[in-house]
Amino acid sequence: MLVVMQAHATEEQVRAVCQKIESLGYRAHPIPGAQRTAIGITGNRGEVEAGTLEEMTGVQEVIRVSKPYKLVSRDVKEENTLISFPGTNATFGGPGLAIIAGPCAIESREQAFAVAERVSRAGAQFFRGGAYKPRTSPYSFQGLGEEALRVMADIREKHGMKIVTEAIDNESLELVEEYADVIQIGARNMQNFSLLKRAGRSKKPVMVKRGMSATLEEFLMAAEYVMSEGNYNVILCERGVRTFADHTRNTLDLSIVPAVQRLSHLPIIVDPSHGTGKRNKVTPLSRAAVAVGADGLIVEVHHDPDKALSDGIQSLYPEQFEELMAQVRQIAPVVGRTVPAIGTHAAVGKTIGVQAGVRPAAS
Amino acid sequence: MLVVMQAHATEEQVRAVCQKIESLGYRAHPIPGAQRTAIGITGNRGEVEAGTLEEMTGVQEVIRVSKPYKLVSRDVKEENTLISFPGTNATFGGPGLAIIAGPCAIESREQAFAVAERVSRAGAQFFRGGAYKPRTSPYSFQGLGEEALRVMADIREKHGMKIVTEAIDNESLELVEEYADVIQIGARNMQNFSLLKRAGRSKKPVMVKRGMSATLEEFLMAAEYVMSEGNYNVILCERGVRTFADHTRNTLDLSIVPAVQRLSHLPIIVDPSHGTGKRNKVTPLSRAAVAVGADGLIVEVHHDPDKALSDGIQSLYPEQFEELMAQVRQIAPVVGRTVPAIGTHAAVGKTIGVQAGVRPAAS
Amino acid sequence: MLVVMQAHATEEQVRAVCQKIESLGYRAHPIPGAQRTAIGITGNRGEVEAGTLEEMTGVQEVIRVSKPYKLVSRDVKEENTLISFPGTNATFGGPGLAIIAGPCAIESREQAFAVAERVSRAGAQFFRGGAYKPRTSPYSFQGLGEEALRVMADIREKHGMKIVTEAIDNESLELVEEYADVIQIGARNMQNFSLLKRAGRSKKPVMVKRGMSATLEEFLMAAEYVMSEGNYNVILCERGVRTFADHTRNTLDLSIVPAVQRLSHLPIIVDPSHGTGKRNKVTPLSRAAVAVGADGLIVEVHHDPDKALSDGIQSLYPEQFEELMAQVRQIAPVVGRTVPAIGTHAAVGKTIGVQAGVRPAAS
Amino acid sequence: MLVVMQAHATEEQVRAVCQKIESLGYRAHPIPGAQRTAIGITGNRGEVEAGTLEEMTGVQEVIRVSKPYKLVSRDVKEENTLISFPGTNATFGGPGLAIIAGPCAIESREQAFAVAERVSRAGAQFFRGGAYKPRTSPYSFQGLGEEALRVMADIREKHGMKIVTEAIDNESLELVEEYADVIQIGARNMQNFSLLKRAGRSKKPVMVKRGMSATLEEFLMAAEYVMSEGNYNVILCERGVRTFADHTRNTLDLSIVPAVQRLSHLPIIVDPSHGTGKRNKVTPLSRAAVAVGADGLIVEVHHDPDKALSDGIQSLYPEQFEELMAQVRQIAPVVGRTVPAIGTHAAVGKTIGVQAGVRPAAS
Repeated sequence: MLVVMQAHATEEQVRAVCQKIESLGYRAHPIPGAQRTAIGITGNRGEVEAGTLEEMTGVQEVIRVSKPYKLVSRDVKEENTLISFPGTNATFGGPGLAIIAGPCAIESREQAFAVAERVSRAGAQFFRGGAYKPRTSPYSFQGLGEEALRVMADIREKHGMKIVTEAIDNESLELVEEYADVIQIGARNMQNFSLLKRAGRSKKPVMVKRGMSATLEEFLMAAEYVMSEGNYNVILCERGVRTFADHTRNTLDLSIVPAVQRLSHLPIIVDPSHGTGKRNKVTPLSRAAVAVGADGLIVEVHHDPDKALSDGIQSLYPEQFEELMAQVRQIAPVVGRTVPAIGTHAAVGKTIGVQAGVRPAAS
Repeated sequence: MLVVMQAHATEEQVRAVCQKIESLGYRAHPIPGAQRTAIGITGNRGEVEAGTLEEMTGVQEVIRVSKPYKLVSRDVKEENTLISFPGTNATFGGPGLAIIAGPCAIESREQAFAVAERVSRAGAQFFRGGAYKPRTSPYSFQGLGEEALRVMADIREKHGMKIVTEAIDNESLELVEEYADVIQIGARNMQNFSLLKRAGRSKKPVMVKRGMSATLEEFLMAAEYVMSEGNYNVILCERGVRTFADHTRNTLDLSIVPAVQRLSHLPIIVDPSHGTGKRNKVTPLSRAAVAVGADGLIVEVHHDPDKALSDGIQSLYPEQFEELMAQVRQIAPVVGRTVPAIGTHAAVGKTIGVQAGVRPAAS
Repeated sequence: MLVVMQAHATEEQVRAVCQKIESLGYRAHPIPGAQRTAIGITGNRGEVEAGTLEEMTGVQEVIRVSKPYKLVSRDVKEENTLISFPGTNATFGGPGLAIIAGPCAIESREQAFAVAERVSRAGAQFFRGGAYKPRTSPYSFQGLGEEALRVMADIREKHGMKIVTEAIDNESLELVEEYADVIQIGARNMQNFSLLKRAGRSKKPVMVKRGMSATLEEFLMAAEYVMSEGNYNVILCERGVRTFADHTRNTLDLSIVPAVQRLSHLPIIVDPSHGTGKRNKVTPLSRAAVAVGADGLIVEVHHDPDKALSDGIQSLYPEQFEELMAQVRQIAPVVGRTVPAIGTHAAVGKTIGVQAGVRPAAS
Repeated sequence: MLVVMQAHATEEQVRAVCQKIESLGYRAHPIPGAQRTAIGITGNRGEVEAGTLEEMTGVQEVIRVSKPYKLVSRDVKEENTLISFPGTNATFGGPGLAIIAGPCAIESREQAFAVAERVSRAGAQFFRGGAYKPRTSPYSFQGLGEEALRVMADIREKHGMKIVTEAIDNESLELVEEYADVIQIGARNMQNFSLLKRAGRSKKPVMVKRGMSATLEEFLMAAEYVMSEGNYNVILCERGVRTFADHTRNTLDLSIVPAVQRLSHLPIIVDPSHGTGKRNKVTPLSRAAVAVGADGLIVEVHHDPDKALSDGIQSLYPEQFEELMAQVRQIAPVVGRTVPAIGTHAAVGKTIGVQAGVRPAAS
């Protein structure tokens, strides 16, 4: 259910409607828009009785939302969600592409800094690196944990990059939340609803990766779980799905990018590294991801991939990443996007944080 | 790595080898067999140096296990794992089929008892009922929680059935562990490694459902996660995988039953309710599951499925479940299995717990 | 569109309605049932105007069939289709299970006779053997062609078995039609509509195998293509579909058996050899196929599988086939089926052809 | 097996080697390259004895090809295959992108010409239109047959576009061969080996669409079937595969483009219309296809899609196609490609046929 306020409704009127909703035992989610504020109503016990709210001052109409996703929907919020990081030019959902790069796992301070320097210089605004690795085998390297988080915090300090890293349970989420800038929920946890709700109570933006066999609706519902707890800064990420095809590790489903953009205001980025699992496919599919209209890329880069403790086979060499950035920089303008020039993102101290932006409409 | 002890090795010798292994920084898993004891070695830092152990008294040989799964493997334990519940005829992995039945979710004490009485009388030794429901939507009914667990404990008291119910996170696992007899890890959490490890530290048997797009290896590795923490009572459960086919909700993959039995000593059961998602397919696929050689069935039954709060469309009416049991009872002997006669399982108080058993070899 | 005739309608009345339909530019398919005759109307140019037909003598009602499949549907024909072979006890769709066995490909007269003797003795009423092999590579063995057909005709002569073999194009179909008893259309040709139509103009029964990624509707529509040309003796065959799962060559989808039986009157059998691609899975899945309610099995058997020119890895040894038959013989009665006793089918000369039969209703 | 000739080998020497191969009962496929000629050897009866050929004059070496595909492989021919049409700037595999556009089916002369004018003006060098439609239902519109072919021949006459249309069996192939410029083999016939071989005996280029569940190897082997009969002008076409995902009709697998280009010298194009089945996804995925490095696009366009007899829901309006071309024109140079300017392709009469070209190497 959705309460659409009148264009000139006051903050007080919005607050009153929210209080009414909460007093009825539901949860109110006020979502300010360019034109007017909408208030999403969620709750565990059926539909609210519309009449009560329709009569309130400032309310224009009460809409029944038939789709299972509410807060992620463009019905609730027409404009794209823009997630920005004050003091930097890093954004999700704005005209600038979000470029996240780094190794699969943080293996050592030396390795992390070596990769960070290269990807930062090439234009990535975000650094990725696994501190907690969800591994198929209990006997595989599981990540350096908090030590890795500390290394990444230092990388932010030095290079001005924002940190994106995965949380695999409540314990690790607590730490990731403390050290990182974006909390990643991995594909294997896309329907770990308990973890999604915990992420929804965080103040940091959350990136949700698509599960290996998730439908579009399930993908959006995972974001809905996060939003239903009050955290509206959610980024979606396509990372390939599981099919019979065996020439890539997963089948990268780029069509989900326009499909998400049609239904939802949330930004969506693409992971061509896990999406293909093969180094030589990462650059062509990165080009394709930008061309299809994605809001950004997350790419694995390692300065010595043959010695990587995990996923070396899909990690780019730093020079390949530079080449990828050069190609992406050429394609971005065709879809109305920009890519930060080399070395410019580390605008630490300067307040150039974008506060609102227009993402090209989904075609 | 696997240390195979001589047939006549003493307990002391076994203990000494285990201590040696632990002193080297690994974990030792002694697994007593009919003929001899094997000791699985697991750990995070590469292979142990075999020479050290080969020289110890009582050691016959040290085998390098090339497959990623170790403790779940028949290489480590040749005989089938038998999980029994003292005081009852309920077992997993023995000649008797394990029959688990009950509603998708516990909705009320009345509903639960109504269903329990019917399925108990029809011969089910285990009662299932969701207390914590992993739902695609945050706004759907999420289960009654501890209240539901209490209801099921009362059902055990009255009907002598053992309780199987799902834990969705560490918090719910703690409660499930307290009230139930078997802890279920759902398909969506099959690669929630944090939860698997927590279940591995429990004393209660754990049933792991196959993820929607899990390969055989990933399925076995999920069990390995539980076992690697010391809990060797693991039951696997096939519940259908996701494919293009649209005549059933999932595609039930019965071929994984003989595939698991070939590689692993763990019992594997089948869930035809989620595996098909359609009431009229449950009985034929239950027959097929028994015929293919499964160690048991888990079936949704509801006394009033049209009013069920979740998954009513796939729940059997009690009479249909009775009919199913009658058919299963006829097929079981063909594959060397037995099904408890009607009403006989509630052998509360009598100690008829099977301590060892022979499951028909996988064909 | 479907014209349902009155119970006492005369043959003449049926003929008149058919002529009327044809005169309107459509095609009439009279389908005699136990109670009454139904006349299916098919054609390329929209619906016929019902009024004209409703007025004719003997017509009870004219029904608009909304599903895309018409002639395959139970709406048109409620009773199961029974396909019998006079002079034998071999049937499809009756209480007796149809057992088809033989090598993947006919490699030589010696090989074919060696296998035929064993499978015939074990109770198979049908002999299979590829004369024309659709191979992924143009350089692989493509079958012996007409020579193989001649060998199989001699096997029929000697053992009284009926012959099932694949046609891969119009040319081979012409020959298969001449020599064999059942024309097989392979999975790769399930949507070779031109070939299906040609098979529909044959007088011999046609077995259509499910395509590797065919939905239930597409599967039924393939049969509809054959029937739309006037050949109503169609047998469906599930042989596994393509999924991400890698423990079997294909994923055998047994749930399609009750799904087909619900919608269609046509018999459906199962191919566990291609459905799993692994010898050790064939017997358990054969048991499951019978238990789920299939009308028969088609199984690859080779007297020396290690030397087979194709698919040896999935072929049973003759002793394994005998064991399979023994197990199937025990399960069949549970689902109201019979399996011919050893060596009894070769009732050559005796007229025991079943002319009508009751298949157990789909559960 | 592959015979690599010396750089200076004479035509006579090549001929002699070919004769020797044929005399041994195999088939010889001389493939002239920029540097030297290679001769592929194919045949049904095992490997040829290398020694005999190695000794012949002009032979540099004889290579055993371990992959199942031979003639399609870059091992046999390193440079990209370029297929050109004298008198036009239309090519496959050269620097110019091949743009194929037109309606799903030819419905009438008026419709076809209306669409042709628009897509020709927008820059498409090829016109597509179904004359023979493989339809799931025998009662759906099956195409106008030869009448449609005649219409398309007239379109070529008027607009200078080359014609691409599907053959569904030997009969239609004969006619398509006569009227059209490129013979299309549809996804459903990708393993109709009999049809592939017939296409291999044609003089016209053949476009093979990927089957709905075809692996990379099977896709290449379909092309190998065509080439094994002597027709080396084969174009591959990705058109989406079947997965569980339901937000598009098929899942477009763009990663197969670089995968094919790595292994094969054949051109590969993309069909975003069937690949997504939704009009609003065609333009973004067309951009992505060009960005990933495809050699061309095949797009459905209809001047009045709401009235289309087939697949209207995925057909672009002519204005949308113009917009698509504008976007593609901007992306092409980034990957070293060109797109003909508006209206320039109809260079009928002028001999600007490209005879050799360099496609950007697969990244």
